[in-house]
Parts: sequence; structure tokens; C-alpha cells
Amino acid sequence: MSVSRTVELEGHIIDSGMMGRCFGIVMDMDGWFDIEQFDVGTRKHEETYARMRVSAEDEDTLHEILHQLNQNGATLEDPVDAGIEPAPADKVVPAGFYSTTNHPTEIRHEGNWIEVDRIEMDCAVVIEDGGEEPRAYTKVLNAIEEGDLVVTGNTGIRVNPPERPRSSEGAFGFMQGGVSSERPATTQIENVAGAIAETKERGGNVMVVAGPAVIHSGARNDLARLIGEGYVDAISAGNGFAVHDLERDLYGTSLGMDVETLEHPRKGHKHHIYTISEIIRSGGIDEAVEEGKIDSGIMYECVENDVPYVLAGSIRDDGPLPDTITDSIEAQNAIREQAHEADMVLMLATLLHSVAVGNCLPSTTRVVCVDINPATVTQLQDRGSAQTIGMVTDIGTFVPLLADSLLDEE
Amino acid sequence: MSVSRTVELEGHIIDSGMMGRCFGIVMDMDGWFDIEQFDVGTRKHEETYARMRVSAEDEDTLHEILHQLNQNGATLEDPVDAGIEPAPADKVVPAGFYSTTNHPTEIRHEGNWIEVDRIEMDCAVVIEDGGEEPRAYTKVLNAIEEGDLVVTGNTGIRVNPPERPRSSEGAFGFMQGGVSSERPATTQIENVAGAIAETKERGGNVMVVAGPAVIHSGARNDLARLIGEGYVDAISAGNGFAVHDLERDLYGTSLGMDVETLEHPRKGHKHHIYTISEIIRSGGIDEAVEEGKIDSGIMYECVENDVPYVLAGSIRDDGPLPDTITDSIEAQNAIREQAHEADMVLMLATLLHSVAVGNCLPSTTRVVCVDINPATVTQLQDRGSAQTIGMVTDIGTFVPLLADSLLDEE
Amino acid sequence: MSVSRTVELEGHIIDSGMMGRCFGIVMDMDGWFDIEQFDVGTRKHEETYARMRVSAEDEDTLHEILHQLNQNGATLEDPVDAGIEPAPADKVVPAGFYSTTNHPTEIRHEGNWIEVDRIEMDCAVVIEDGGEEPRAYTKVLNAIEEGDLVVTGNTGIRVNPPERPRSSEGAFGFMQGGVSSERPATTQIENVAGAIAETKERGGNVMVVAGPAVIHSGARNDLARLIGEGYVDAISAGNGFAVHDLERDLYGTSLGMDVETLEHPRKGHKHHIYTISEIIRSGGIDEAVEEGKIDSGIMYECVENDVPYVLAGSIRDDGPLPDTITDSIEAQNAIREQAHEADMVLMLATLLHSVAVGNCLPSTTRVVCVDINPATVTQLQDRGSAQTIGMVTDIGTFVPLLADSLLDEE
Amino acid sequence: MSVSRTVELEGHIIDSGMMGRCFGIVMDMDGWFDIEQFDVGTRKHEETYARMRVSAEDEDTLHEILHQLNQNGATLEDPVDAGIEPAPADKVVPAGFYSTTNHPTEIRHEGNWIEVDRIEMDCAVVIEDGGEEPRAYTKVLNAIEEGDLVVTGNTGIRVNPPERPRSSEGAFGFMQGGVSSERPATTQIENVAGAIAETKERGGNVMVVAGPAVIHSGARNDLARLIGEGYVDAISAGNGFAVHDLERDLYGTSLGMDVETLEHPRKGHKHHIYTISEIIRSGGIDEAVEEGKIDSGIMYECVENDVPYVLAGSIRDDGPLPDTITDSIEAQNAIREQAHEADMVLMLATLLHSVAVGNCLPSTTRVVCVDINPATVTQLQDRGSAQTIGMVTDIGTFVPLLADSLLDEE
Repeated sequence: MSVSRTVELEGHIIDSGMMGRCFGIVMDMDGWFDIEQFDVGTRKHEETYARMRVSAEDEDTLHEILHQLNQNGATLEDPVDAGIEPAPADKVVPAGFYSTTNHPTEIRHEGNWIEVDRIEMDCAVVIEDGGEEPRAYTKVLNAIEEGDLVVTGNTGIRVNPPERPRSSEGAFGFMQGGVSSERPATTQIENVAGAIAETKERGGNVMVVAGPAVIHSGARNDLARLIGEGYVDAISAGNGFAVHDLERDLYGTSLGMDVETLEHPRKGHKHHIYTISEIIRSGGIDEAVEEGKIDSGIMYECVENDVPYVLAGSIRDDGPLPDTITDSIEAQNAIREQAHEADMVLMLATLLHSVAVGNCLPSTTRVVCVDINPATVTQLQDRGSAQTIGMVTDIGTFVPLLADSLLDEE
Repeated sequence: MSVSRTVELEGHIIDSGMMGRCFGIVMDMDGWFDIEQFDVGTRKHEETYARMRVSAEDEDTLHEILHQLNQNGATLEDPVDAGIEPAPADKVVPAGFYSTTNHPTEIRHEGNWIEVDRIEMDCAVVIEDGGEEPRAYTKVLNAIEEGDLVVTGNTGIRVNPPERPRSSEGAFGFMQGGVSSERPATTQIENVAGAIAETKERGGNVMVVAGPAVIHSGARNDLARLIGEGYVDAISAGNGFAVHDLERDLYGTSLGMDVETLEHPRKGHKHHIYTISEIIRSGGIDEAVEEGKIDSGIMYECVENDVPYVLAGSIRDDGPLPDTITDSIEAQNAIREQAHEADMVLMLATLLHSVAVGNCLPSTTRVVCVDINPATVTQLQDRGSAQTIGMVTDIGTFVPLLADSLLDEE
Repeated sequence: MSVSRTVELEGHIIDSGMMGRCFGIVMDMDGWFDIEQFDVGTRKHEETYARMRVSAEDEDTLHEILHQLNQNGATLEDPVDAGIEPAPADKVVPAGFYSTTNHPTEIRHEGNWIEVDRIEMDCAVVIEDGGEEPRAYTKVLNAIEEGDLVVTGNTGIRVNPPERPRSSEGAFGFMQGGVSSERPATTQIENVAGAIAETKERGGNVMVVAGPAVIHSGARNDLARLIGEGYVDAISAGNGFAVHDLERDLYGTSLGMDVETLEHPRKGHKHHIYTISEIIRSGGIDEAVEEGKIDSGIMYECVENDVPYVLAGSIRDDGPLPDTITDSIEAQNAIREQAHEADMVLMLATLLHSVAVGNCLPSTTRVVCVDINPATVTQLQDRGSAQTIGMVTDIGTFVPLLADSLLDEE
Repeated sequence: MSVSRTVELEGHIIDSGMMGRCFGIVMDMDGWFDIEQFDVGTRKHEETYARMRVSAEDEDTLHEILHQLNQNGATLEDPVDAGIEPAPADKVVPAGFYSTTNHPTEIRHEGNWIEVDRIEMDCAVVIEDGGEEPRAYTKVLNAIEEGDLVVTGNTGIRVNPPERPRSSEGAFGFMQGGVSSERPATTQIENVAGAIAETKERGGNVMVVAGPAVIHSGARNDLARLIGEGYVDAISAGNGFAVHDLERDLYGTSLGMDVETLEHPRKGHKHHIYTISEIIRSGGIDEAVEEGKIDSGIMYECVENDVPYVLAGSIRDDGPLPDTITDSIEAQNAIREQAHEADMVLMLATLLHSVAVGNCLPSTTRVVCVDINPATVTQLQDRGSAQTIGMVTDIGTFVPLLADSLLDEE
């Protein structure tokens, strides 16, 4: 005896690959299906609708299939409420809790679909039902508190993966597919500049995630200019990034190399550690800027223009600076706040920080990831949003050309 | 009018390049010199002695030159005591403090040379003079306490860079130079096995630094075997490494991929987060092993064989596990303890943790660094000890072949 | 006024992505379509059939759309003969000639579908109609002779892209998707060994394409063993590969490095050029083996076991050896002969030769591509056959483990 | 009983590392030495002179040691003539022939030192003694003719490795050491521009070696501009490079991608092969330009400005174009002619062609090697001249910024 259930697919389900994926899921998991209705969108921008009856040998199999279909955007024709169970203890989720994707998600609660707030992947969903209007939002595992109402199981959950746009229209039209060092670099940089300008015009928030190579490669002044001109709303980086930037101001070197003459002054290798010592002496970056000890660069522009920065600590740090958040959970939470505000994220030559930020982003946020190492770009794209583009290029030429493009456009 | 001072160079100063470096320093910094004595070691194993008078136009220049010579192993013929000043506040070093290299270092204090304990790079040196016997040891900047007697200036300090061994004798003879993916891999692996065996025979301590690729690439069981057989004395890794290892035990997958069949079970991508949840539920790894929830793998063997592990947190972590040290300073200190115990360190497919461990190592510790990405290997070798060798190879074949070689040798 | 035509799609057209691609083509090229029939294969191994009416504003647009659909496996419901025109001169194709894909292709000629012989990409198709039975086969541009009957236009051509197999059954079941250095290496190697064994059992032909890193990395003896044991039917390599192999026999070094002791004997760097000189003196590799000058290694085993080898010349060659084919067209033709015989191709650590071989292969030949550089593996996979798998691993451990796996299986 | 001989070292032998290398050679090869004279250059720009007596247990060992010392720049105090023997047959060198380095070399013949013409590595040296003035020059192995007087043995040969310049003065001062993607990119590009300008001002010859990525990455127009403005005296590339450039002119695409819009027109993948067909139809590139079929781009500017180009064939070529030299020996000879004319060589994003050109260059030619892949840059630098600098950057931003810098400077 077999069991079955009807699901619906809607949207650009064919050319986004959703339909193929859904059919594949059923067949891979030893189910089968009948197409009950199939209205194909036959022109650009038209959507397709499919209704299919999915069957399996037993309830468990059917459940698993439906869960997978659901994660890929299919919805049950006839939905029920999501399961909810209280967390048995702090940091402990109920067994069978639902672990999120990074796609927009709705939870069916008391017959209504509620949008999950602050969606990001690998979280639990908590329902807050005390007040008038029930709310659903994500919590990372270590933030769960005893008694939190946690969504469990697979029913009553609706996931909406963004569709890859068919045509290349608009400022973000270029944002599709592929990592390649064999693409016209200057054209791509102009596209990124256009997307930033468009985001700012719409009042959007642009977040920059940056690694130390930004400084070593000579891009510091141009990134500082972009901050000074208001193109950056938040910066996420590490202790080392800030130290390199401040070292450049104090000693004119980056990790001991003079970035103008390319020479390593003999004493250079001490500048890094001396810089940290000087900032500690002042009490922090803000204080050092206030004292006039620091009067140029990226951190300086952040302080002067009230651009919030998060400096996350790491086990390889020297120092660290007083401004560096050394606890990784605390730092992650600070990054999370920034990430949820961002409409567009520029990831510049850092794997660790980019992954950390990427983990907190919903799949709908636009991301541009730039690195000279193709493996870094690929890894960030694989974490996956349809809105991520990668550029394999030199950060030391990318940022200056981007700044020229943006500041000339004005 | 010019000033001058006499310095001495001793050892394999020619073929280690020390002599060339020292001559270069003098000339680059606009000094000049006269060779007063030069006894060349003219056969293998013979040492060279050179005494030279170094001159410069003014005291400041001469000082800088002497400091640089000193950092490269030259010593003043007629030394004076090192400068010492108390730290003005917690975490604040006196101006002009001496920042360490990772080479064995001595401080001249009250006419005697004292070896600096726990030498590592980019630290301050603190003198403890309260008791009978004065002591010198390193402190990282954030550990400095008000009143600590900190070494300042460049005089009274003797640095002894290890010499690159001329011949390729002994188990570590192969440990010279070069990163290459174009070297006979199996021969190199046997050499590494020989070096581990020799280290253990001498009662030495072997530390392993490992990244998640060890698990993904299928090397987990072989690393677990090596731990079980007593070849590993300490493990340094991240939260992700432990989760992947434990996931393999609980679900048979690594990041959702079945490492035997190479298939991604449809539910696989949730296993990672479920694993964390399960360990949190138990209270920690030790408890999960005790309960019998975990009964194989790397973490299991560590618990069963009392091999201490440090799991350092990072901003990209899921969870984290209760065992993960989330504060980066605390984690760095735990790593520091391990690193100072180690006689030989194997760095397996992790850049972040390898750099963190490398930062704490004196230049005399033997290091083998293995990664499929040549850039990682190069970066670790550049941090520099003469005793580091790099292998560009696949960790997924390296560990099994290493285990075979070590366990067959018995 | 619009024009339209009916096309059919058959097979695993949904989960192979063919349907999505075809719908996308129509819409991207400003056409539209109606689904006239749609029978979905709803269980594993069942096939789908779709018939759709494709429309466009004018004949030219429709033509282009139909051509693209055709290249992706759709066929006209109501076909006509392919166009044919004689080549106007040697090496000159008629305007509008049809340029091939690497997929199995049929040409409609006088009402019959003829399979195109020796299919490979970027060729012209020539019809030979003199004898009883008309024949169609590919010719590269420079092989075209005046008067050759060359297929033109887009009609009367049927392309059959191989479908990506759904399940992972059989020895080649593992051959799907993805390049990763983060996969269990030893399991993958066993799979490759299994596929080779299966190919040989079926009487198939295994071709090896190898670069010099095979020798430098210490894999020479194991590849020689595989040849000696009959697992290799043809070798394609360059002048440098052969020289390195022969140098190893004559001097025990590879590019001057002793692959046992890892030392560079001082005279080593001359061995390469001396080796070439010695083989020139003998008259060639066969002669050198006959004389007893060469008595081990890969080239030796090829000579002894009558395994044909093609050594293609390149502008970076020293020498070259008398056996090296210096003309690139001639060399390409020799490679083409090997490639067309092969049922399975192993590409070992060479980009140039792998691309050259890959260019000549139909999309149905099984290919395993192994390189430590992910970019090489990606580039080879992009040239695209559904039957290519890539492994990012160390050739110096891959070949020994492969040989162990194959020779233990016996 | 032991034998000995006196050798001399002169120049910047300490800080160039020559002295350390020479001492190392003696000791590694089981000889020993006494320093008979040692006058150290103790200020910048001063040279050092050392005379040492080298000893060994037997004549053979001493010979080998002296040969190695010689290759590294040491000279015998009391020299004899070089050995000479006639080649026994075409392409066959006498046993024990001297194989060249790429350093300036002199041969002692009848008591006089003769400079070897057209020095490049891995060649034989032929003495021409028929006329008034004896001549010495290099020949590659396959160019040797029966009866050529070939230099043999190790005596009577003087090699002069260029010294690495101590200070960073002049336009080429920046040309020292290190490959890094973490260096200020725009500063480095300005330095390269300065070096090109300086070379042209001195009437020097600038050669460009270019790979297809120059076109794909959008740098085509800027390279064409540099040719049009007279900054390039010769181009060395492959068949594919020229086809991509010509395709861009004929169809506006590069390998099918529109480099302005980044779109792949559906028919794009055929443009490559159609381009070849069109040029074949014209008879060659010159003819196609003459006909007006080609009216922009790199090849166009070469034809219009009489900049000679060599297109070398390879086994992976489509076509090839009628202008492509398909025989690798013939192509190598054409490249050799270009290389010997060049005063400065720019290697742009091609490994194969760069190695081929590099093989023909004396160590004194200035080389700038640019690639986004650090492995390519490292490999080219390892072939080694002290005058090679590597830049790991994006060719698609490098060439535009270089063109801007050079054309603004005017």
C-alpha cells in the first residue's frame, strides 16, 4: 500500500532548475509522481505552475520526500501547522528541530503563514506567541533558552528560494553565475560600481568585509576615499586589518613594507607590534584618532564618518587592539547585526571574515566577492545565494578602479 | 666624525648566509666595516669565525645597525647589560621595548647572560629579579602587567638563529628548503614517518594541527589510528574539525557527504547542525564518549587515550561545541601551552590554526606542513624556521600512507 | 506574422536539464512555444517525451532557435535533408558550414539518418557519397580538400547529448559531478581502479595522457608497472615527459633531482640535456632500448610491451628526441588516432596534452582527470563530457595507490 | 695524496651569495679550501676579491668541483684553453660536450678569451675558426652539424652570473626579488611603465609574450593602443591568441563571450572556428587586413605598424591560421630570433610561451612576468635571471593601467 500527497510548484520553475530538482528528489528517494496540472510559462517573464501528486511506499519515506521538496520551494497543496516544542534547557533544542536554510521562509502557525524574521542558515526557528501578533525568528543554537518554542518537523514550513533572473537587466543583471579570471575585468568593475551607486540611491546599506591584503596591495587610500564619500555603511574585518591600516598611518609601512617604494626598511618588521602597543597606550582607535595620533586611512575615516566597524578577534592575532572583540560568539553576534542591515555586501580579499558574514546573510542579499585566489571565490559562491557574484582579480587594482568609477560618476 | 664598534660572527656563518646578510645590513644602512679576523671553516662541519669593526657616521645609525646585526646572530665583542623599564600600566609596554624574534635569545642582566624562556616572536621580554636567580621570559602584549620589568633598546641581547644544516644526515636531514608539488611524494612521506618515529623514540612530543579537510578527504580513520597507537601527544584544531569528526561517527557523513560512497544523502546537510546539538545535549565531547554516544574517530581516541586537545573558536563556527574555547586570547594561550611542549609539529591542511600555532613556536621546533594549496605551505614556511618543511600533497592520501608507514615499521 | 515549427524532446530530459535548457533557449532568443504533448517519466529510469510548437516573429529567428535546440538534443518532428556544398578550395570550407559539437550526431542525407563517424568538436562534416553506402565523418579545417561535400546550415542534423546518469550504479556510477580536493581520496582511487579493471575486462582500450610531474613526483615506477601488466593501451605525452623518464634510467635523476634521496647532485642539471644527446646518438628510443642503453621505466615498458606512444613536440622542448613529432598538425593527427580508439582516458598532471586529447574525444568517452591544481581539473571538465570526473590530488600518491589497488585486485 | 688548484672570485660576491655558494660547493663535493687572499668590499658598490686554493682527494673530484665553481662565477687563476672536438654526425654532439648556462660566458681559445654569442641555456658551444677572427656561439642540439667544433669538458670556460643589484636605484631598481600578490599593485605597474619608457628612450627593444587571457580579460584594446603608439617591437604568441583577437574584431566576442556585455550570444561558441575559416579564406592575417576584413585589434596594429609577430602552433590549436608556424623547431627558432633582439620582455598571462621565450633569453635580459596564478610566476622566475620580476595580478586590470600610465606620461 502506498501513500501520497499533492504539492505545487510555482514561478520560473523550469529555467531556475527547480522543477528538475524536485522531480529528481522524488525519484532519488524512491517515490513517484503524477503531474496533475502543468501550465508552462512560454515567454520570458511568464511563470509556470505545476501541481503533482507525490507517492511513496510508506509514510516515513513520503515525509522525507516532502521535506526535501519543501526545502526546494515546493509547497503542500493542503498545509497544516508547523510542529512546536519548548526547548528543554538553555542551548538545547528539542529533538527533531527544524534547521533553517538561508532562503525566505514562512511558518504556518494557527492557520496563518508567518514570515520568519532574520532568516539565516543552520538556525532554529523560535515562535513568540505571548503578545497580540505571533512572531517567528531564527536563533543560533547557543542562543536558545529553556522554554523557547522551537519549530520541529517538516510540515507547515514554506521555503522560497530566490529564482535566478533570466535576463541581464538592471544594475544587478550582470550578477549571474560563473567565477572566472578570464572575464573583462574593467567592465565587471564598472558593473559593480553601478550596483553600489544604485544601492546607495535607493537608500540601501553597503557593507564591506575586508582582509589585510587590501592594505598590502596598496588599496588602502582608495577604500578610505570611498568611506569618506559615504559609499560604505559598515565594515567587518579582523584585528590584523586594522593594525595594518594604522601601521600605515603611524610608520608608512604595511607589515614592514613601504607601500610607496616597495622597500622593507630594516626596522619594518617591528612596526606591526609597535602600532598595537601605541593604540593600546591610547586606549583604542577612537581615542587615538581623537588625540590626533591617527589622522588618515580606513579606520580614521570610519571614526570621522561614524561608520560602524566590527573587528573580530582570531587566534592568530597579535595584540589584540582594545577595539577587537575577542569572544567569537560575541563577535559573530556583532557581525550578524551588520549583516542583517546590509543590502549589498562587498567581500574583499578575506576568506575567514567573508564566510562568517556569509553565514549570517539571507540568500536575497546581493554579494560581490573579490579575491585573487579562485578557490576563495568558489568557496564563497558555494555557500550559496543566487545573488552572489565572484571576481577573480587583484584587490590592489580592483579597489582603485572601483573608486575611480564611483567618484567619477558623481 | 664616525663611531664604531666590534662585533663577532661564529658558526656556519657563510653557507647559512648569515655573513652575507650581516655585510648587507651594514652596507644597506650606510655603515662600513673592516674585517679584523676571518677564520674560515673549510670543510664540512667546520665553523667560521669573523670579527669585524662596524662604523657609521653617528651613534643613532650605528645603534640601528648593531640592532639588526644582533637580530641576525652577530654579537658585540664587548657587551653591556640590557635596558630594563617597568611597564607603566597593564597591557602597556614601556616605549622602545624590545620585540622578540622566534630565535633562541639571551639577555645580559647584571653581567650575566640569561636564556629567555618560552621564546616566541613579537613578544616583550620580562625580567623577574625578585628571588635568588633572575629569570627572563616572553610575554605577549596583552599579558603585560603594570610594573613588569620589560627589556628595552637593543643592547645586551643575543639572538642565535639556527643554522640550516649543511648535509642531509639523520631523520631530519631531509628537512631542507623548498616547497614543491613536484617531488617524490611517497619518499617524502616515509621521511616524515621516520622523523616522527625518531621523535617518539627520544621521548619527544608530537603535536598535530588539523583542519576539517582531514575528515572530508577520508583521512579520519588513519589519524585516529595514529592517536590510538600513541603517535600523537596533542591536537590543536577548530570547532568545525571536531564537529565533522563527530558527525562522521553519529551519521556516517562529513558535511553531509557519505565518505564511503561519496553520495550526499538528501538529509545530509542537516547532520552538521544536528551533531552539534547532540553534543550540547550531552554536555560536551567527554560526556558524549562516556555515554557511548560517540564510539569512534579522532575525538574519541583523544578522550580514550588522554590526548589533550584544544578546540579554538572562530567567527565562522556553528554551535559551537561546549568544548570549544570561544575567547581568542584564552584559546591562543591554550595553544601556546601545547606549542611550547611540542618537539615536532604536523600541520595538516589548515591555514588559520597552523599560523596560530606557528606564531607561538620557537624557530628550533621541527615542523612539517602539509597542504594541497602551495600558497598555504609557502605562507607557513615564510613565517620561518629553518626546521620547517612543506609538502604540497593531498591530505587524503598523505595521512593513510603516513599511518601505513609508521604502523608497518613497528 | 509569425512562423513556427514542431520539435520533440525525448529521454531523461528533465533531470538532465535538457528541457530547462531548451525552454530557456526559446525564451532567450525571443521566441515562444506551446507544449503539445508532455509525458513525464515519473520513476527512476523512465523517460520523458515532450512535443512543442516553437514560434518566432520571422524565419531567421526561428532558424537560429531551431539550430540551438538541435545542438541541445531536440529534433524536428518533420525533418528535411541537411544542406551540402562542395569546398571551394583546399582548407577552405563553404560559407555557413556546420561546426560540430562533441556529441554523437546524425546527418539526414537523401531521407536517411547517417551517423557521423569520428565525431569531435569544432570540425566540419563531410559526406562521402561515391560508393554504395553514403558516409559522413568529421574533418578538421586544415584537412578539407577542394570539392569535399561539406554539411552546411542547421537542418537535417540530429545531436544526441549523453544524459547524466541518475543513479550511481556500476563501475562508472561514481563518475558524476564536482571537482573537489575535499573528497575521500583513497575511496575515489579505488573507484578509478575499478573502472579501469572493468574497461579492460570488456576488452576496452585505456589511454594515458601524462605530464612530467608523473616522473618528478616519484610515480614513474608504478606507471611503468601498470604498463608492464597490460593496463595501458596507448600513451600520449610530450618530449619532456620522455626525457625525464629516460634521464631517470640513465642517471637516476629527474630534472637533476635524485628521486630517492631528494638530493640535487651538483651535476644534475646537465643530465636532462645529456639524456637527449644520448638518445639522439642511438637514433631513437626504440634503438636505445634495443642497445640495452635503456632498461627500465615507462618508455622502456612501452617499447617492450608494444604500447604505442605519441610524443608531441612543443616550443619549450629541449632537443627534441628523434621520436618527438615536431609538427603540431601531424602530432595532433597522431593524438586523434589514439583518442578515437580509447574507451577510457586517464589524464595525469598535464594541461596542454590533456586539452589536446580532450579536443579529439567524443563526449561519450570516459575520462578521469587528475591534477594537484584545481584550475587544471576545472578547465578540463569544462570542455565537457558528462563522463569526465576530476580529482584534485597528488599524482605522486595517486599512481602508487592506483597501481596497488589494480595489482592487488588480480 | 691530494690535488689542488687556485680559483678567484670577484665582484659583489658576498651579498650576491656567490661566495657562500662556492664555499658550499667545495664542501658538499668533499673538497676543502684555503683562503689565500680576501679583500672585502665594505661599502655599497665596492667589490670583494677572494683567492682560494681548492683541494680534493683525486683529479676527478677536483675537476667536478672546479666545473661547478666555474658555473657559479669562479675563475681559474691560471687558465688553459677549452677542449674542442668535432661533432661526429648531424645532431650528435661529442661525448662530454659543455652544456651552457644562460649567463654571459667566455671560452678560452688559443690563449684568448672569446665571448660566446647568442648565449642561452642548455646549448652546445661551437667554435668557428676558419676566418681571421675565431668566433664562439651557441647551437641547440638539433642544429649541430657533422664536423662542428664543439666545446667539451670544463676548462677554459668563464661564466659571469649577473649580480643582484644591492640598491634599488634607477628605473629597474624595483626589479628585485619576490613574487607576491600582496604588494601595492598600482605602484608596481607604474614602475613597469617607467622601465618600458626608459627602455624605449634608450632605443631598446620591447618584446611582448601574450596569452589568450589578454583578450578574454578585456585588455585587448589597451595592448593594441600600446602597439599603435610604438611601445612594442615584437610579439610572440600562439594561434589561439591571434584567433581570439581576430574573433573580437569580426564578431565582437572572445571565445563566444561578448566582452562588453559579458553575455554569451547563443551562437558565440561557433565564432572561434568561423574566424579561423575566414582568415584561411583570405589567405592569412596580412591579407585579411589588406582586404579590410580586419580593422582593429592587436594583430591589426601589428600589421599596420610593421611589428613582427611569431604565432607558434600547438597540439591544442584549432585551425590553425595560415600564419601559425606549426613545426615546433621552426617556431622555436623564430622565437629565438625575437628573444635575442629583446632588451626587455613582458610576459602576459601565458605559461607555455613564456617558458619557450625564457629558454632563449640570456640572464641579462630584463623580464616582467605577469599572471594571476602565482605558480606560473614562480615557475618563470625559477628559470632564473636576476633581472626577472614577477607580478601576481589580473592581466585585465594590469594592461589598462599600464597603458594609462605610459600614454599619460607622454
